[in-house]
Amino acid sequence: MTSITSRENAQVKAWRRLAQESHAYRKLGQIWLEGEHLCSAAQQAGLAVHTLVLSQSRWDAQELERWWPAAVSGGRGDGRLAVVVLEDSLFAHVSGLESAAGLAYVVARTDVPDQLQAGVATVVLDRLQDAGNVGAILRCAAAFGFKQIVALQGTAALWSPKVLRAGMGAHFGLGLVEQATHGDVAALAVPLLITSSHDGAYVHKADLPWPCAWVMGHEGQGVSEALSALPHTPVRIAQPGGQESLNVATAAAICLHASAATWA
Amino acid sequence: MTSITSRENAQVKAWRRLAQESHAYRKLGQIWLEGEHLCSAAQQAGLAVHTLVLSQSRWDAQELERWWPAAVSGGRGDGRLAVVVLEDSLFAHVSGLESAAGLAYVVARTDVPDQLQAGVATVVLDRLQDAGNVGAILRCAAAFGFKQIVALQGTAALWSPKVLRAGMGAHFGLGLVEQATHGDVAALAVPLLITSSHDGAYVHKADLPWPCAWVMGHEGQGVSEALSALPHTPVRIAQPGGQESLNVATAAAICLHASAATWA
Repeated sequence: MTSITSRENAQVKAWRRLAQESHAYRKLGQIWLEGEHLCSAAQQAGLAVHTLVLSQSRWDAQELERWWPAAVSGGRGDGRLAVVVLEDSLFAHVSGLESAAGLAYVVARTDVPDQLQAGVATVVLDRLQDAGNVGAILRCAAAFGFKQIVALQGTAALWSPKVLRAGMGAHFGLGLVEQATHGDVAALAVPLLITSSHDGAYVHKADLPWPCAWVMGHEGQGVSEALSALPHTPVRIAQPGGQESLNVATAAAICLHASAATWA
Repeated sequence: MTSITSRENAQVKAWRRLAQESHAYRKLGQIWLEGEHLCSAAQQAGLAVHTLVLSQSRWDAQELERWWPAAVSGGRGDGRLAVVVLEDSLFAHVSGLESAAGLAYVVARTDVPDQLQAGVATVVLDRLQDAGNVGAILRCAAAFGFKQIVALQGTAALWSPKVLRAGMGAHFGLGLVEQATHGDVAALAVPLLITSSHDGAYVHKADLPWPCAWVMGHEGQGVSEALSALPHTPVRIAQPGGQESLNVATAAAICLHASAATWA
């Protein structure tokens, strides 16, 4: 175990950026997973954790064993896991949260799967902006048996602290491809489904293919024209109450659930 | 038209609270609707607007007529609408938004319907905390033909600026009952449906009643025991991908859509 006490420590500075800046993980090549829920989910998924960061309070409460990652083989003696303890106030300085969790895993960016898989059930995110929406869609995707998220350039950073929190652990059950191109979407080799306000069968009556790729578009602009130009099946959501626009995460929930219902 | 130039003006101070504090409308008895989308929706709904607030820029751009509320009968001469112009910087001071819209309607709290209606399709919100979730559910409710939202004590304030923004105008097509009690829920006189993780028919196969009242619970705790003790039908959402918890707004979307699909 190492104790760090200074805000000027290079690792502390890096973690602070990871914990508080949406895109820092891309530059620094590491991901900060904070809090009991995310760390538990990462443990269950057997994620390769290289550093466990605990607050002094958690260390004093003898929580080391509890948070020792499942994926570190051979137990605590094999030296593959760094354990770092920060004074509570220093942990709070690092954390982006109002109530710092006092617990975080640090994971190498290269240890989370990000290779495009063809032929699997996929959700394509076309420039979605809102971290809460993206996180909610990841939860639906995991729950409804989708294997992969393909996020086009311009989508909220999937491993950002906000999307991680909103995703509630769903990240660890999905392949997450970022900064994808239209070529990547074309290469999925499963039928594309795009929601339409005026075209196609109603999602509750449609004969949906499985596996498939649902395309969810930007909160204001919807799916781009270029992406809509790819061969796809339009599907619409019945709105007998009137043509209110739906929030993209709620529209996605309805569509992904309808897919799951075809084989659940 | 009246111009106001001082931040110390009592009306300006009140509007600022309305625009920036979640519960101010309850104390002040007025609701601040800011931005083109909300004002257009309010116009279309024929909402009784008593004050139109414009930024100097919008006034100079001759937008008065465009934003004259549809519900003010007799046109602009009848004196029932106050028009107030604020310097752009003063409007920004009032607004809670990063980019102030320069346009707002002020509505009396008593001019929006808040009486419980029995026998109509309803969504019950049991202490939902997140304004984004509440707004998204309101949009689904309006789209899927529900007539009324009944929010139990502890739910995010429905007419707060954040819920209004997330609701995107759905507020104006619904009866909104706040600070409701369990007695109010029992008085709805329609079948209650509550989602369960382990009990009841799957929502995509269930024979759902219409009208009905869906009960959506607190983000962390779900539906309270007291509410669950009321006679109800449990319904569950198939999650073939695993028992990820769903965000409450996405769960609500699936349920409300399934109801709409019974009669759409």
